[in-house]
Amino acid sequence: MKVIGHLINGKLTHSDTSPQQSRLQDLTNPSTNEVIGRVALASKATVEEAIAAAEAAYPTWRNLPTAKRVRIMYRLRDLLEENADKICELITQEHGKVLNDAMGELQRGIENIEYVCSAPEMLKGEHSKNVGPAIDSWSEFQPLGVCAGITPFNFPAMVPLWMWPMAIACGNTFILKPSERTPSCALFIAELGIEAGIPAGVLNVVNGDKEAVDTLLTDRRIQAASFVGSTPIAEYVYTTGTAHGKRVQAFGGAKNHAIVMPDADLDNAVAALMGAAYGSCGERCMAISVAVAVGDDTANTLVAKLQAQIAQLKVGDGMDNQNDMGPLVTKAHLNKVQGLITAGIEEGAELVVDGRNLKVPGYENGNYLGACLFDRVTAEMHIHSCEIFGPVLCVMRVDTMQEAMDIINNHEYGNGTCLFTRDGEAARYFSDNIKVGMVGINVPLPVPVAHHSFGGWKRSLFGDLHAYGPDSVRFYTKRKTITQRWPASGVREGMQFSFPSNN
Amino acid sequence: MKVIGHLINGKLTHSDTSPQQSRLQDLTNPSTNEVIGRVALASKATVEEAIAAAEAAYPTWRNLPTAKRVRIMYRLRDLLEENADKICELITQEHGKVLNDAMGELQRGIENIEYVCSAPEMLKGEHSKNVGPAIDSWSEFQPLGVCAGITPFNFPAMVPLWMWPMAIACGNTFILKPSERTPSCALFIAELGIEAGIPAGVLNVVNGDKEAVDTLLTDRRIQAASFVGSTPIAEYVYTTGTAHGKRVQAFGGAKNHAIVMPDADLDNAVAALMGAAYGSCGERCMAISVAVAVGDDTANTLVAKLQAQIAQLKVGDGMDNQNDMGPLVTKAHLNKVQGLITAGIEEGAELVVDGRNLKVPGYENGNYLGACLFDRVTAEMHIHSCEIFGPVLCVMRVDTMQEAMDIINNHEYGNGTCLFTRDGEAARYFSDNIKVGMVGINVPLPVPVAHHSFGGWKRSLFGDLHAYGPDSVRFYTKRKTITQRWPASGVREGMQFSFPSNN
Amino acid sequence: MKVIGHLINGKLTHSDTSPQQSRLQDLTNPSTNEVIGRVALASKATVEEAIAAAEAAYPTWRNLPTAKRVRIMYRLRDLLEENADKICELITQEHGKVLNDAMGELQRGIENIEYVCSAPEMLKGEHSKNVGPAIDSWSEFQPLGVCAGITPFNFPAMVPLWMWPMAIACGNTFILKPSERTPSCALFIAELGIEAGIPAGVLNVVNGDKEAVDTLLTDRRIQAASFVGSTPIAEYVYTTGTAHGKRVQAFGGAKNHAIVMPDADLDNAVAALMGAAYGSCGERCMAISVAVAVGDDTANTLVAKLQAQIAQLKVGDGMDNQNDMGPLVTKAHLNKVQGLITAGIEEGAELVVDGRNLKVPGYENGNYLGACLFDRVTAEMHIHSCEIFGPVLCVMRVDTMQEAMDIINNHEYGNGTCLFTRDGEAARYFSDNIKVGMVGINVPLPVPVAHHSFGGWKRSLFGDLHAYGPDSVRFYTKRKTITQRWPASGVREGMQFSFPSNN
Amino acid sequence: MKVIGHLINGKLTHSDTSPQQSRLQDLTNPSTNEVIGRVALASKATVEEAIAAAEAAYPTWRNLPTAKRVRIMYRLRDLLEENADKICELITQEHGKVLNDAMGELQRGIENIEYVCSAPEMLKGEHSKNVGPAIDSWSEFQPLGVCAGITPFNFPAMVPLWMWPMAIACGNTFILKPSERTPSCALFIAELGIEAGIPAGVLNVVNGDKEAVDTLLTDRRIQAASFVGSTPIAEYVYTTGTAHGKRVQAFGGAKNHAIVMPDADLDNAVAALMGAAYGSCGERCMAISVAVAVGDDTANTLVAKLQAQIAQLKVGDGMDNQNDMGPLVTKAHLNKVQGLITAGIEEGAELVVDGRNLKVPGYENGNYLGACLFDRVTAEMHIHSCEIFGPVLCVMRVDTMQEAMDIINNHEYGNGTCLFTRDGEAARYFSDNIKVGMVGINVPLPVPVAHHSFGGWKRSLFGDLHAYGPDSVRFYTKRKTITQRWPASGVREGMQFSFPSNN
Repeated sequence: MKVIGHLINGKLTHSDTSPQQSRLQDLTNPSTNEVIGRVALASKATVEEAIAAAEAAYPTWRNLPTAKRVRIMYRLRDLLEENADKICELITQEHGKVLNDAMGELQRGIENIEYVCSAPEMLKGEHSKNVGPAIDSWSEFQPLGVCAGITPFNFPAMVPLWMWPMAIACGNTFILKPSERTPSCALFIAELGIEAGIPAGVLNVVNGDKEAVDTLLTDRRIQAASFVGSTPIAEYVYTTGTAHGKRVQAFGGAKNHAIVMPDADLDNAVAALMGAAYGSCGERCMAISVAVAVGDDTANTLVAKLQAQIAQLKVGDGMDNQNDMGPLVTKAHLNKVQGLITAGIEEGAELVVDGRNLKVPGYENGNYLGACLFDRVTAEMHIHSCEIFGPVLCVMRVDTMQEAMDIINNHEYGNGTCLFTRDGEAARYFSDNIKVGMVGINVPLPVPVAHHSFGGWKRSLFGDLHAYGPDSVRFYTKRKTITQRWPASGVREGMQFSFPSNN
Repeated sequence: MKVIGHLINGKLTHSDTSPQQSRLQDLTNPSTNEVIGRVALASKATVEEAIAAAEAAYPTWRNLPTAKRVRIMYRLRDLLEENADKICELITQEHGKVLNDAMGELQRGIENIEYVCSAPEMLKGEHSKNVGPAIDSWSEFQPLGVCAGITPFNFPAMVPLWMWPMAIACGNTFILKPSERTPSCALFIAELGIEAGIPAGVLNVVNGDKEAVDTLLTDRRIQAASFVGSTPIAEYVYTTGTAHGKRVQAFGGAKNHAIVMPDADLDNAVAALMGAAYGSCGERCMAISVAVAVGDDTANTLVAKLQAQIAQLKVGDGMDNQNDMGPLVTKAHLNKVQGLITAGIEEGAELVVDGRNLKVPGYENGNYLGACLFDRVTAEMHIHSCEIFGPVLCVMRVDTMQEAMDIINNHEYGNGTCLFTRDGEAARYFSDNIKVGMVGINVPLPVPVAHHSFGGWKRSLFGDLHAYGPDSVRFYTKRKTITQRWPASGVREGMQFSFPSNN
Repeated sequence: MKVIGHLINGKLTHSDTSPQQSRLQDLTNPSTNEVIGRVALASKATVEEAIAAAEAAYPTWRNLPTAKRVRIMYRLRDLLEENADKICELITQEHGKVLNDAMGELQRGIENIEYVCSAPEMLKGEHSKNVGPAIDSWSEFQPLGVCAGITPFNFPAMVPLWMWPMAIACGNTFILKPSERTPSCALFIAELGIEAGIPAGVLNVVNGDKEAVDTLLTDRRIQAASFVGSTPIAEYVYTTGTAHGKRVQAFGGAKNHAIVMPDADLDNAVAALMGAAYGSCGERCMAISVAVAVGDDTANTLVAKLQAQIAQLKVGDGMDNQNDMGPLVTKAHLNKVQGLITAGIEEGAELVVDGRNLKVPGYENGNYLGACLFDRVTAEMHIHSCEIFGPVLCVMRVDTMQEAMDIINNHEYGNGTCLFTRDGEAARYFSDNIKVGMVGINVPLPVPVAHHSFGGWKRSLFGDLHAYGPDSVRFYTKRKTITQRWPASGVREGMQFSFPSNN
Repeated sequence: MKVIGHLINGKLTHSDTSPQQSRLQDLTNPSTNEVIGRVALASKATVEEAIAAAEAAYPTWRNLPTAKRVRIMYRLRDLLEENADKICELITQEHGKVLNDAMGELQRGIENIEYVCSAPEMLKGEHSKNVGPAIDSWSEFQPLGVCAGITPFNFPAMVPLWMWPMAIACGNTFILKPSERTPSCALFIAELGIEAGIPAGVLNVVNGDKEAVDTLLTDRRIQAASFVGSTPIAEYVYTTGTAHGKRVQAFGGAKNHAIVMPDADLDNAVAALMGAAYGSCGERCMAISVAVAVGDDTANTLVAKLQAQIAQLKVGDGMDNQNDMGPLVTKAHLNKVQGLITAGIEEGAELVVDGRNLKVPGYENGNYLGACLFDRVTAEMHIHSCEIFGPVLCVMRVDTMQEAMDIINNHEYGNGTCLFTRDGEAARYFSDNIKVGMVGINVPLPVPVAHHSFGGWKRSLFGDLHAYGPDSVRFYTKRKTITQRWPASGVREGMQFSFPSNN
């Protein structure tokens, strides 16, 4: 049975060969709950070994011309395409999502690497001539040093690729701690990075749990940390990291609403919502988990069309691309989602479609839950205030667009949102006034493309700068401003005079 | 006797007219220690009144076209020029610095307003056509809401002007809490802002102490805070503010070294060091307080030339522009500086010039201290590890430039530094490898001009983004990314068909 | 009677005091055709005198810190506001437009000066660290030298302010040749520039005709020329200037269509069209001169509503702000416009409103023409293919939006256009596919604001870069790229060794 | 024997299979003057066929999401690396340069493709919120349509790669006309482009002579042309193309001086000059062909060291990487260079090293010329005023740096230049005041890296915008500015009211 270890200083190290004994934790396939391997949980000492390697690699890596650092990304991009099938299998085995969906995630990750290829452009500083008499000034965006990334279970390929490629392209070295639920894929991709030419120590991977995280957040050699996960942990990471002198960006939870206007093309909206609500079992921080219908007519039609579509959904093992949805990631998470469904019913929401009795033949022990649809959800219900992170779509009914916007603006989270309409004015009013960081107009999952940046508002993000895209360059660098004057003390003018005397 | 109160919702309010009783604290003239007025110390309730005003003013202000918000800055700029003499008198009366020096500070503040006039350019978002089939995406930089600024005694005009003009130009509303030692100037400038057309509630000033600061840092309606002061307070402000969900940038202390190379033009270097070390009594976070001479010859000549220059320095009342240096800000601060000088002697540094016995005729009660020069200072001494913030220049002697750079790179602070040389290669090596945020080459006070940004490294700055210039735009705004698709459902194409049927 | 002369090397010079005899031409008031002054037409020698002054002033001006050059703009802005009434009178006396309209033009000009205040930001070059091992590279945007501007009669204040403020802020010196029909205002504004602090020779004004233009276009000392006028002259200016080694941008004619969709708010569209078609008598290169109605219903309603509005239009002397429209600029131009109206009737268009018999009491000799409205205009008619530059609005009728877009895309010009609709998809399709440089969605005069750039497509612009805004910075500067390496030959490292030997 | 034809609409077509008979011209190997193939010279009809293909491919290509267009570049980059040896052989066979040198050229070309991968970032428009009340405005950089490139013999791989990859990444389609002396490599690379996924018609190659060039410059369907070659042809291309309504950038000749200062590291300077003067036989527009020594001492040492180095140079067949220099491109060009050498001698320059008698065993019929070194060259000599484009380095002697700079500033060309010094002030003064577009400090061939832009000043470039890098994005796109307002006519607010009535 495989043991997923660490990648430190360019070498794979397993707990059993390491001088510092790591603990081991089982890896299970969510489709069957069979144990498929074990992951090493790094001790503080192991993490410190990785930090030492990253620190040692930093001075040389930092001084390498940017174009040379970036050139590795082109090779990595090729290797990811060549190994796409294997990567997706690793994702599906540990996470459960359908292979096609894993491929979509990987593609997004590759697009981030493509953006990293813009680093020579993005790292340009600002040069000002004559800020004073014969005085010039310019800014440089210098790397920070050793950076860390702590990533979640739900996008085991993509989220790490948001972080370390740009971080190292900017001249930093990096330590990645992937989710201990889905560690194989990130480790394998890091190995491909080494194959592509990343020097030893520049990129390190440590698997682990809170001990590893705390070591990364408190070690003085770490200059910056990026985190994606739930809001309570994000807040902990932000507070702990900044208290220890680090730059931190910590991405937390979400509750993303789509407003459906009476003038929207409903067939289009329903098709969009199906993917946005149930894709990847709703285990996405950008999933649409609430549809707010403006007007009862809109709501009635919407619910009817959703019901019809849900009836067509195929749920089953993620290795079979015929399926639309796989299992949830763990039994514990399945239980949590079912608990929230029960709470919804108790609080008075109408469970129009109940996916709880789903049986997947041959996978009876998997963490399966069919698509669920609630109607007449209200703002105070737990299924509205909490992030469910499961295949549960809530429909809310309001009389006006303003009412819908108030619901969104009053929510704790502000990650993503979407408006379905045909009306230019409604779109402009919505995008201007909604207190959410990523806004879609007729686009249900408004994840910014790789040359823009990802980030929510309110308690969906702790930190000033968004992930990937232009903001990530600013996050992974610090500004240095040089002001330069060369006194005209006659050396240049006088150079000719010195020579006759030498003759 | 004048009472310096608050500016809330467009109106001056003094403690005695306010329903919430503010406490009052004496204002003294550092040149005489006479009481020249009193400053109201706002209660929590008074600060909350200001926050409420700022919150109420926000929606309208935010929606005003950027160009209209910025237009006010042109008028303010004129008013500052027209009232420059009065502003400088207010500075000198409370801070002690020479009028000329106050004028220099004000000029820097005006330059920041000039940069704010670039806001329409700086606030441009990024627009991408065809991020997918007929899908466009763009980012906007939207204002945050109510922001706060907490500013130090030493630049009572300039540092507030780093903050609120850009903050409000970006569409935020603002609450400024100036230093309670030097409050008059910031309040007066804010009044000029109102005169220039800033609507009621958009810019508010509260005077106060820790109670006011803590209210600003913990009230949930405040979205962001900028702070300039000492490192321990900066760290407190950063930790407290971020723990309460705010974006914070907190600028702290400094210890700025100049390296003097053997090939430097020493007359030029000495002239530069005199201003950089003793200007404004060294009460500047960008003051050069350490000169590191490479080679004993360099050091010997440097010390000799400095001694000669110091002998020419005129110290006296700041209202007389004949003087080069005024008093320190308070008796307490004078005592602290004198204590550090004593410590330096005890630790073995050589006090080449001793300014402690200075008497200024007619101002015997003022906080006067003559220029002091230490030679043979070493890295471990308190006069090197602590920020003195007084007219004390330390000379260190090293054998090589690398040794000098190591001293700087190992210091707790990383605000500013300077190299005096004629050598292109030395300049490049220094500016690349020195761990300091603001670097001068033959420029002793490398304060970035207004279209660049101000910020130190290490424990001189808590936060990701620098002050004023381009970084301040990013600090005072949050990114929103919109992804937009207009489904081609035939409405446009079919419009003609509807008309025959209408005929 | 006033004589409008030249401003050369900081001094006003009239033909009669100049050693080179200029010719004189009458200036007439278009409202009465009375002679109100004379304008000097510069000889080649006079223009060369101006060029010599500009060339002499260049080296010092170029080396002035950018912030100092820009600071003059703040003062000029104030002077323009203070002298606004006088400037507008000069405009109205010579051009005829209503004072309010002149004030709008001046305001646009002031906004261009405000954008020029962003020059320190816009002139930043791009700095790249480590393009090779210890090799840095950066670009600078250096000024060109002496530049020229040749401006039209219809915006005597605004168009010159598009050009010379940015040109000189970038470090160039400048020679302006305003229209000889409306020269007073540009000369007066230039005098205000001198008052604001522009040094002698940096900004020069020569009045004149083709002799002056040709001198500017062929003299080797002129580095660049900006022109606004008709397409044939624009083409001549471009060809002549580039053949003589100059950078040229030449803005020509226009025929701007508005498409009115069936779903548009017609009251809003009609109100917008009235101003866009008849404002300033249609003597604007951004005037809407064609309304293309989609569907006969739309057309019928549109024409009826326009007729009703036209009946309310007040035409009369521009000095009376009660009027909506003043006279055309010259009798010759009036005749030309009337000739096109006759041609339109002969070619079969339906003249729904005929403004030709208008009499303005007390101004019977003025160049007055009432608002005219043609219906059922087709693409081949002269009133569609030619730029009328008069108060004549043509309505075209089409069945589909695509048909309307084809008409626009096939026209010789591509300056501005507008779509009236409520439909997001139509707006996106239109703005993407229309072959026009400046596009309005429900905005009839889509003149870009000052922080964007102005420019048409097709034969509306000869040259690569647009006017004012970001493009103008690129136009008035040339790129220089420096690549720098400092060989590490041991000088820095070895400096310490030289010193013991000196002891 | 191979026949080099055209690539039109995705297919290779040879003259003999084309309906329009192309003429054929011999291709010779410059090392032997043997005929190694023939190149088809396209007729007007063949070129028009390519234009038609490019025009047909444009609408679909333009609408493809930018990221998809760019993704092809990643594949092309891989193919270029895989086929590097073959490409270099094609270069050396037709041009003569040493294989290593061809590899350097190809590498530069690949770097340009890497920069093109930044296109999604570079094509971002500027988005302004609230330019007026609820009015937004943004700019887009839209493609031009069909573009053309006309490239020289001396960089058969690199210069085409400056042009078409960025042009098509921006959404244009393209027609390349390579030099008829060295056509094979560009055609082969274009075939690799097709293999990488460029759709038929998007990239076309026509080989040819003046007939092809004139067709491209006059056909109204071509929107823009980029040219690199000699100054007279560049001027012709610019004049002809712009007269036919095209955007044109035309890069011409050069005479690049290096100033050698007394404080320069002479060994370093000499090593740099050897490569810069004699690499690729001096057939580079960035070759250093003049070394200006400041002071006779400097000159004497410089000449002596150069002589010593020249004695080590190996000249011979380019297929042998042991050689430093290969043959000149043609016998005619060899004769021209020899003629200039004779002229130099006649005008009084001192031919210190005479390479004219060189014989390369086994290649007696090749176009070989050994390295030549002139001393005591003066500004008026033909060998100084003309671009020699051969292995001839001229040394000039001056007393001061200013004298050296005057020589450079007075020369017709202003492509590249270099200063060898250690002095920071001299470097700054030089780079600021030298009238040359590309400046090196201790860098002899200051060709900007791919993320900067290439361009000379004076008669080295006709056009406003430089090649590759950021300027090329601006060159290959046109600005469109959209101003958008959505009237709030109650549709959004009223949507709820329509529904009760429907029930």
